[in-house]
Amino acid sequence: MPYRAPLSDYRFLFDHVVDLKKVAATEKFAEATPDMVEAILTEAGRMCEDVLAPLQRRGDLHPAKLENGVVRTSPGFADGYRAIAEGGWVSIAADPDHGGMGLPMAVTTAVNEMMSAACLSLQLNPLMTQGQIEALEHHASDALKSLYLPKLITGAWAGTMNLTEPQAGSDVGALRSKAEPNGDGSYAITGQKIYISWGDNDFTENVCHLVLARLPDAVEGTKGISLFLVPKYLPDDTGAPGQANELRVVSLEHKMGLHGSPTAVMEYSGAKGWLVGPEHGGMKCMFTMMNNARLGVGGQGIGVAEGAYQHALAYASDRKQGRTPVEGGTGAIVDHADVRRMLATMKAEIFAARAIALSCGVAIDMARATGEADWSARAALLTPITKAFGTDTGISVADMGVQVHGGMGFIEETGAAQFSRDVRVTAIYEGTNGIQSMDLVARKMMDGGEAAFGLLDEIEAMAESAKATLPDLAMPVWNAAETLREAVEWLVGQSDMNTRFAGAVPFLRAFARVLGGYYHLRAAVADPEGARARLARFYILRLLPEHVGLLAHARVGAEDLYALSLEDLAA
Amino acid sequence: MPYRAPLSDYRFLFDHVVDLKKVAATEKFAEATPDMVEAILTEAGRMCEDVLAPLQRRGDLHPAKLENGVVRTSPGFADGYRAIAEGGWVSIAADPDHGGMGLPMAVTTAVNEMMSAACLSLQLNPLMTQGQIEALEHHASDALKSLYLPKLITGAWAGTMNLTEPQAGSDVGALRSKAEPNGDGSYAITGQKIYISWGDNDFTENVCHLVLARLPDAVEGTKGISLFLVPKYLPDDTGAPGQANELRVVSLEHKMGLHGSPTAVMEYSGAKGWLVGPEHGGMKCMFTMMNNARLGVGGQGIGVAEGAYQHALAYASDRKQGRTPVEGGTGAIVDHADVRRMLATMKAEIFAARAIALSCGVAIDMARATGEADWSARAALLTPITKAFGTDTGISVADMGVQVHGGMGFIEETGAAQFSRDVRVTAIYEGTNGIQSMDLVARKMMDGGEAAFGLLDEIEAMAESAKATLPDLAMPVWNAAETLREAVEWLVGQSDMNTRFAGAVPFLRAFARVLGGYYHLRAAVADPEGARARLARFYILRLLPEHVGLLAHARVGAEDLYALSLEDLAA
Repeated sequence: MPYRAPLSDYRFLFDHVVDLKKVAATEKFAEATPDMVEAILTEAGRMCEDVLAPLQRRGDLHPAKLENGVVRTSPGFADGYRAIAEGGWVSIAADPDHGGMGLPMAVTTAVNEMMSAACLSLQLNPLMTQGQIEALEHHASDALKSLYLPKLITGAWAGTMNLTEPQAGSDVGALRSKAEPNGDGSYAITGQKIYISWGDNDFTENVCHLVLARLPDAVEGTKGISLFLVPKYLPDDTGAPGQANELRVVSLEHKMGLHGSPTAVMEYSGAKGWLVGPEHGGMKCMFTMMNNARLGVGGQGIGVAEGAYQHALAYASDRKQGRTPVEGGTGAIVDHADVRRMLATMKAEIFAARAIALSCGVAIDMARATGEADWSARAALLTPITKAFGTDTGISVADMGVQVHGGMGFIEETGAAQFSRDVRVTAIYEGTNGIQSMDLVARKMMDGGEAAFGLLDEIEAMAESAKATLPDLAMPVWNAAETLREAVEWLVGQSDMNTRFAGAVPFLRAFARVLGGYYHLRAAVADPEGARARLARFYILRLLPEHVGLLAHARVGAEDLYALSLEDLAA
Repeated sequence: MPYRAPLSDYRFLFDHVVDLKKVAATEKFAEATPDMVEAILTEAGRMCEDVLAPLQRRGDLHPAKLENGVVRTSPGFADGYRAIAEGGWVSIAADPDHGGMGLPMAVTTAVNEMMSAACLSLQLNPLMTQGQIEALEHHASDALKSLYLPKLITGAWAGTMNLTEPQAGSDVGALRSKAEPNGDGSYAITGQKIYISWGDNDFTENVCHLVLARLPDAVEGTKGISLFLVPKYLPDDTGAPGQANELRVVSLEHKMGLHGSPTAVMEYSGAKGWLVGPEHGGMKCMFTMMNNARLGVGGQGIGVAEGAYQHALAYASDRKQGRTPVEGGTGAIVDHADVRRMLATMKAEIFAARAIALSCGVAIDMARATGEADWSARAALLTPITKAFGTDTGISVADMGVQVHGGMGFIEETGAAQFSRDVRVTAIYEGTNGIQSMDLVARKMMDGGEAAFGLLDEIEAMAESAKATLPDLAMPVWNAAETLREAVEWLVGQSDMNTRFAGAVPFLRAFARVLGGYYHLRAAVADPEGARARLARFYILRLLPEHVGLLAHARVGAEDLYALSLEDLAA
């Protein structure tokens, strides 16, 4: 299953679409020059192509196993992880004070995406560590930071996040795990956690769990939750992994895909842990980790989409079937209009989702570098869209990849089905895409729509300026932005949250559609006679019109939905 | 994995939406009275609930295997098949002259759908037999009919269809299997066939293969293909299975889903077969079988959608999570707007797809009973729509079922993922959904759009008459039909087939969307204060608007698509 890192796409996007120059112009990210970024991506890309891609199918065929309480990872994964760690790819964005490279999140996003494309199940491991690093950087004591961060950043130790319990999934406030002070500054953590991605492995010296639990005096709900760092092995006086902590993997899940990634049920039985952030302030800390992870998971969807696309294009270019319907055709199925439509859709969707994710990365970087609230608001707005649209794109593109393969798509040996099975979970974990959409229409609109309107102003101004040269592309984008603006205006006027929630998912998708139109238009303007403009035309004329139906759906409200009673649904 | 046969839905659809009365009013189907149909569906439904549904997961966990050249089916499948055969459910539509019940295809469609919902992988076996029965009824000699049909109709013997070869998939005309006359009226068949669903089993006395092959004097392409009946065991003088024929299962595929159904590579090494239909006339005979199978496969998608829906509704009604957002809520996740949106979407889509499939069945029945060309044309028009929209609905509803389950959806033990994996192939086999769409915009529009316009006239007249009582539902349906009419007018004006093909898939989906609106509107008119009208409102206001974007896409043409060169796609 060969994979080719899409370096020219990143280069084009950084130069012409998401404006990485802005980021490199700040003092904080002055090192992120075009040459530096090119070198980073080239090296990471080569590692993904040569080392990670060959592991993809092995993880599927030889799932991680629990043997006598020990997790045995898929063959080759230990070597793959070593390549990631030794290359410094666990966390290129981490703080240089603790050994990180301090590179922009936009560049991290591209590197993460490539690793996801090459081997999603292994990439999930460093992605979890990245989130933990960021949570510790922001919220941990200096003592914890200096003990843990260097180990996590080099990849010597791995990190996990422990939120979910059987009765507490999307409603994390219902969790019951307990933390009791030991009297020495540490806490005894007790409880069961489920769905713990990479809850253990056999290739890092230690595994550090960030665990949400309740202190004895905690109130109910999310305000009574605190965050603890709980290592598998307690660091000794030298900081090396010492005595085993009171925690264990109870079982691993049998999943639809992502077999190479062990999904654990974890049991904490008075395990020793240390508070991260303030007492009862765990949710805020966890959100630092989750926002990072949400951008990362969006990137997973895009990566898988890219892998599935390359695979499908190779198959369609090779598979002979029927007479070619076009003059001078290749004789392969890529000549057929419907196959080409699928491939073009896949490519156009990947471009849109990737541009959204990289824009989100740029916004995060600008917020960090400048401290400006507008950039923070932009990042906050784009995060749920990146996560939901990136993963939906992963799912739909992988599904089209199966279809392009015809009968072979349903046969596991081609790998097309694995992309589809693996990526499915990305719409569920780190907050389901429904939760992302609710976040977008509620929390992210608490500013009265200001951040959204700011982005729409930018889109309309850009489309306005493109009208002179590319009217047939600029006009539909401008119109779509205006239709979306009306929907945002309607939305922020709805005080009943269920009215918003009833259309949240189609609203988010419509927002992504319009953003996709915008970024494709920018691409067309930069390359008006080239492939970018031809792809933009495909997207804008064929896919962008979807926003009309989506926004109609988004604005219906909740009344007729709840009029459908449970009895109606069961009838 | 309990399943409840949706009898009230069939009853309502037959009485108020697809008008089964018309069929029962013909001489041919005079026995299909409401009482008879109710009795049939009730009994079939009970068998599906009690016998087939418990096999669903067993087939997934214990796939069919090839052991020393013998296919061993999943545990319990032999008993399940016996229940199907003994109940007479293999083929209730078959000709009474050979032991069939001669019931309408509309009723068969409902029975097939229930069996698919309960256990798709086993149901595929009798579905193949049904197609074979129909092909033999239409095209076989009287000798073949009297020898084979009674065995197939009782289910003592099973049937398969053998089209595909490694180099001949969608382009069936490229097949190379050979048939040489033995001089005694039989032929020696030699060649390899792939993707043979239920190529063998260990629970029927015999397996009869319908095989496409070329006679020695055959021209190239589809006009040189003949059809042969090739049994696993050659019938002896008494008609009982005798000597083994020269054919074997080479291997079984390792598939994404449908593990209970053995998908075989078949080798024919001079196997004895008998011609069905005229020499070189095999394609026409095979189309009889395939048209039947296409309606059946559409029903498979709908059945799986129903199973997935029932599963998701049960989970959502049971799973407590978070505070209920509605007064007097149940506390389960079904109270949440986004979960309810998903469930309502699933139910509304199933209703639409089921109505389309049953309408197709009614059209087939009316064509048979009356011989009227208009009914044949209606059936021909609806067949690809039923197949593609039914299976797309199966895929999208099963996918939503996974999402409703949240994290549990990705864990195999819930069964949600299995629905999604199993149903995926239905968009591929019996002609990919792309092929169905091309059939719709090309062959099915060779009448200049007459059949389509006839249906649109019916829709608009009905919407017109509903305007007085249900204006807010009738108007959008009328408008959507009119928009579709304009698209059909545009389409039939395009003489370049690639211009049509470039938008064929979105066109078919838009057609199905509009049909769904029509049938939902009929339901609302019949039950204006009830659950049917509330579901219709959900569909018409939220899902129907999708047709706007789809038809915009459908009408762009092929130019910009082919402007995207292979180099562009690979860039």
